Amino acid sequence: MTRETITHRDGHVYEFGPEMEPVYEAADGESLTIETVDSLNGEIQENDDLLDAIPDEVNAATGPIAVAGASPGDVLAVEIEAVRVAEDRGRVLTAPGFGLLQDDPEIDHPATRITEVREGDGSDGGATAIDFEGIDVPIEPVIGTIGVATGGETISTLTPDDHGGNLDTTDVTGGTTVYFPVFQEGAMLALGDAKAAMADGEMCGTGAEIAVEVDATLSVIEDPDVALDRPLLDTGDAVKTVASAPTLEEAVELANGDMLALLAHHHGFARTEAYLFASLVGGLEISQVVDPQVTARNAVPSEYLSLPF
Amino acid sequence: MTRETITHRDGHVYEFGPEMEPVYEAADGESLTIETVDSLNGEIQENDDLLDAIPDEVNAATGPIAVAGASPGDVLAVEIEAVRVAEDRGRVLTAPGFGLLQDDPEIDHPATRITEVREGDGSDGGATAIDFEGIDVPIEPVIGTIGVATGGETISTLTPDDHGGNLDTTDVTGGTTVYFPVFQEGAMLALGDAKAAMADGEMCGTGAEIAVEVDATLSVIEDPDVALDRPLLDTGDAVKTVASAPTLEEAVELANGDMLALLAHHHGFARTEAYLFASLVGGLEISQVVDPQVTARNAVPSEYLSLPF
Repeated sequence: MTRETITHRDGHVYEFGPEMEPVYEAADGESLTIETVDSLNGEIQENDDLLDAIPDEVNAATGPIAVAGASPGDVLAVEIEAVRVAEDRGRVLTAPGFGLLQDDPEIDHPATRITEVREGDGSDGGATAIDFEGIDVPIEPVIGTIGVATGGETISTLTPDDHGGNLDTTDVTGGTTVYFPVFQEGAMLALGDAKAAMADGEMCGTGAEIAVEVDATLSVIEDPDVALDRPLLDTGDAVKTVASAPTLEEAVELANGDMLALLAHHHGFARTEAYLFASLVGGLEISQVVDPQVTARNAVPSEYLSLPF
Repeated sequence: MTRETITHRDGHVYEFGPEMEPVYEAADGESLTIETVDSLNGEIQENDDLLDAIPDEVNAATGPIAVAGASPGDVLAVEIEAVRVAEDRGRVLTAPGFGLLQDDPEIDHPATRITEVREGDGSDGGATAIDFEGIDVPIEPVIGTIGVATGGETISTLTPDDHGGNLDTTDVTGGTTVYFPVFQEGAMLALGDAKAAMADGEMCGTGAEIAVEVDATLSVIEDPDVALDRPLLDTGDAVKTVASAPTLEEAVELANGDMLALLAHHHGFARTEAYLFASLVGGLEISQVVDPQVTARNAVPSEYLSLPF
């Protein structure tokens, strides 16, 4: 099978909803390359390019891509083989009314710093670092927005929820498999909003936003032994439940609860034992604290948990 | 100098306040061994020992230890050389009205699981794992409660705040130096509430609570170039600010703000640049979500930040 490339020029969305028109239909198990534009559609190219407000259309997500055979109740596995930066610069920035410290009077809103790609031309995968004010920061790409058609709501690509969306989770990178609940026929995967580097938390509101190419294989898991309500990650080193909610308190409660179901299934634990065990290994992590809903994870090292699919 | 051992039998506290009577006065730079009892004073020894409520006296903290020369405005450095488990079992448990999922009807409150120490006798440092229901969990000790006299308030050892206290932070272990603001003459260090293992978050309300011996060196940093408002960690791999507050949202805002001051000092950044840079490397972490105040961190890898003292 020839490897298809799907680009944002083929199609992109600014919302995940229940009814999405695919730009491509992939076979179950098909490997694709997916190209994305940066979250701000290339509008920020210099330090003088400032963002006075978050645009209505942000985080363009390439797709949606239908996956043959995916039906509600199934799980969609997105095995991310590689993420390569695809332009010569990223940009990290603040905007008024956005970010963890948006009310700090000593921090400029808006402010932009261009982060040039240090080595390689950014299109051949040879780039290894970006530059921030003379400091080399290793390129560790993150796919910020990745999700599937929702169960009913229409949700902006600025917002994360049970369908995925703007998860802004550093683990969503090469080597990780992301699992989504399937809510609609074909699943309808779309992704974009990548960063060349991002801190857990994404405090200022962005990482180093950049265009990328993603190699991924899409597979359908029918009738999973443990049903998913929300996204789930397998990084190779750890299994991580991912939950988004209005507050971090609510998000960690959901992520911990989801993890208990997986631990109980794997070890034959009652829920109480799963809870006690989850309090001894791995633990809670922060994805982002800046979007309209925030996102947190519960990680358990792979030596204690393998997935039932 | 003979190495002194200070034990919980010499003295311990259940509160940190502004006026604390030392059980020992250490020289500036003195190395000590500090012995602690488990957080529940040895009352939980079998799975049938249940905790119907959090006791009024919990997290006995051995000390306080005065450090000669420490004065308000200074920084106390506690270099933790080693933490050794000192009994043959830990205990992980739930109690009614406590823990992240305290309202989950499928989780028993109270519930106890004894976690026996697998190898070594627990007193010679040879122990490497505890047992949870047949699963080996590596011993990675954590000092749960560690702090100094407060600026004014009297605060239970169940609660973390700017003086430290019940931080329940996995990084507080051998190899880490913990820095505290000094609020009172002598600083008045006390510590206890150790765990043989604990997840970030401490979701059920405890780790594997256990008695330990701590080797530590106590030093006073006079007139620090960057004043501390809250505890700070240097793990060797990363510098981490630590903040406690009623909500995680407030805690991460404090931790991020504190980190910007350190990054600005080290790199000569304006606060805006420090904020943008902090959004690219390391990131926000969760210490615990179960105590009367919750605790979060902002980590920056050591390659980007060394402390000014």
